[in-house]
Amino acid sequence: MKFKPGDTASVTKTITEEDIEKFAELSGDRNSIHLDQDYAAGTRFHGCIAHGMLTSSLISNVIGNHLPGLGSIYLGQNLKFVAPVFAGDTITARATVTSVRDDKPVVTLETVCTNQRGEIVIQGEAAVLVE
Amino acid sequence: MKFKPGDTASVTKTITEEDIEKFAELSGDRNSIHLDQDYAAGTRFHGCIAHGMLTSSLISNVIGNHLPGLGSIYLGQNLKFVAPVFAGDTITARATVTSVRDDKPVVTLETVCTNQRGEIVIQGEAAVLVE
Repeated sequence: MKFKPGDTASVTKTITEEDIEKFAELSGDRNSIHLDQDYAAGTRFHGCIAHGMLTSSLISNVIGNHLPGLGSIYLGQNLKFVAPVFAGDTITARATVTSVRDDKPVVTLETVCTNQRGEIVIQGEAAVLVE
Repeated sequence: MKFKPGDTASVTKTITEEDIEKFAELSGDRNSIHLDQDYAAGTRFHGCIAHGMLTSSLISNVIGNHLPGLGSIYLGQNLKFVAPVFAGDTITARATVTSVRDDKPVVTLETVCTNQRGEIVIQGEAAVLVE
């Protein structure tokens, strides 16, 4: 196992309205909080927010491309959606190895998404088998 | 709270190669297991598989559109990726209310994705605030 606790990688992307529309089309999740500005203006968020799973897709990016990268088989992911993400927000998804199993090639990673102000928007943990 | 334990809803969709390509583009996760047939043929799956987060997006669909639907605010999601999903697989995502909090309008739902053979591919739990 070439990974050890503390290894870390990140990706950064600005979520656009077009991304939200594409994710709505791909997932079929057309909840008004994501797509209807008039409706969303009357909610606690005062505007449309990105789907939690769209922002979470950046965790898939960092794990699939960078850490562990090639050979990763995603076993599990826990997600807490702790703050809203709006179109125009620049999100950094960071994965950090927290443990490596002795008995099989499975790594656990802390997975955190933050916005351009450094506020955590998603917090969680991933388990990945590395082949 | 108009929801009670046992309430259930589902959506069904066939995952296509085009969906996998669109998700790769949107997320930026271009791991070869999803996109490179030659590489994937040599893995335990003997072919390309869908991103776990792409299949999970159907859980976002059922929660955002149907149960709880409008007014849902996604608080958390746990995911276990227990079997691979291939292009052409028809996936049903089902959410079933398991508990409703007394003190605040938060529902917990069991979230399960199965394929066309009834095999579980994703198992997990969602927490949703209902406004």
